[in-house]
Amino acid sequence: MNPVITAYDWVPDFAKGQVRDLRVRWALEEVGQPYDVRYLSQGEQKRPEHRSLQPYGQVPTYEEGDFTLFESGAIVLHIAGKGDLLPADPAGRAHATEWAFAALNTVEPPIMDQAIATLFEIDKPWSKPRLPAIEQRIAERLAETADRLGTRDWYRAAFSAGDLLMIAVLRILEGDPLLAAHPTLETYVARGTARPAFQRALAAQMAGFTGQAPPAMQAWLEKQGLAA
Amino acid sequence: MNPVITAYDWVPDFAKGQVRDLRVRWALEEVGQPYDVRYLSQGEQKRPEHRSLQPYGQVPTYEEGDFTLFESGAIVLHIAGKGDLLPADPAGRAHATEWAFAALNTVEPPIMDQAIATLFEIDKPWSKPRLPAIEQRIAERLAETADRLGTRDWYRAAFSAGDLLMIAVLRILEGDPLLAAHPTLETYVARGTARPAFQRALAAQMAGFTGQAPPAMQAWLEKQGLAA
Repeated sequence: MNPVITAYDWVPDFAKGQVRDLRVRWALEEVGQPYDVRYLSQGEQKRPEHRSLQPYGQVPTYEEGDFTLFESGAIVLHIAGKGDLLPADPAGRAHATEWAFAALNTVEPPIMDQAIATLFEIDKPWSKPRLPAIEQRIAERLAETADRLGTRDWYRAAFSAGDLLMIAVLRILEGDPLLAAHPTLETYVARGTARPAFQRALAAQMAGFTGQAPPAMQAWLEKQGLAA
Repeated sequence: MNPVITAYDWVPDFAKGQVRDLRVRWALEEVGQPYDVRYLSQGEQKRPEHRSLQPYGQVPTYEEGDFTLFESGAIVLHIAGKGDLLPADPAGRAHATEWAFAALNTVEPPIMDQAIATLFEIDKPWSKPRLPAIEQRIAERLAETADRLGTRDWYRAAFSAGDLLMIAVLRILEGDPLLAAHPTLETYVARGTARPAFQRALAAQMAGFTGQAPPAMQAWLEKQGLAA
């Protein structure tokens, strides 16, 4: 029995390749674990059946027989422990976990804030005036992230779950001048996304978008100029 | 040799009892591990000496001989593994980690957003108009967090690092009507903060604020009505 994850069958174009099941697919590909996917149409994630697996009504989830798990960070660390994405010794494990939290709790929040201001709340009058302050917070975090990486390939001796999550967060900014200001970070992202496991994970997520936009969402996206 | 953590010798009144070294102190108290504290005055956290331990110029950090660690979530999980805050089996460990990420990556971001709008960016024109949307995001997360807790004491069979971090996040809202709308969550927070280990951790953090406000920061706080 393969583990089963959940993913969406449709998201707006700007979210394609960014939905968080990608991080879990990438970890599964890195450790060579085949998996199955249960796709949800938009709205299904908020129904009680899915909330019993994911209290916050989000994807991804992870099921391995009776064992279930949510939060992509926790799922990635769990999968990492089955392969060589997480060192076996407590110190090495702690260091991979440190970069996992740095990615999700320190670097990602201002990047998600930018997404709120430029996408989800693009129609709110306060969004545009906030952007310079948000960009300044992102710039500061990126400079610090680049400083610590230096010219190394990965944050620790070998590619770990911490690098996987940091690269998954940083690549949200691919093509953004904020990331281009740090060539070593751009190279770090390119080094991660060139991994065959990442390429297979991305292709699999993209191939899963076979569903339809809910009409109200499609209308809103068109009105905001965010539809393809 | 006791492990050494870092903490601030001064923060604004609104942050006293909330600085993230509290989470680490609480975990150390739970597992019965004595520790030492190196205090930083405001500004010191951004100097190269401290950034060598914490690339983002924040507290806390954790040092145990040559082993060093940053990110309070990672430090708490590391300490938890030394006592009974983290189950020894992979499934139990994953479930405690799941709630750690839920606390820090799903529940805390909108709460920090409220803090940005009401404290750090209180003088920005966009802050007040954003509040209703932020409060709605918090309300949704709290309702989901309460639904999953139900009438249980803790999220899993025993108090874990996941509960510790979730309670540390939820108590930011103590006295806020958003939290009061969920009596079971208020009780959950009270159950956690009544633990002797929490009480010792809080008293220790409060006792450490023996420093002075930088004059420019004090002037800004007074201008915003945020000084004591």
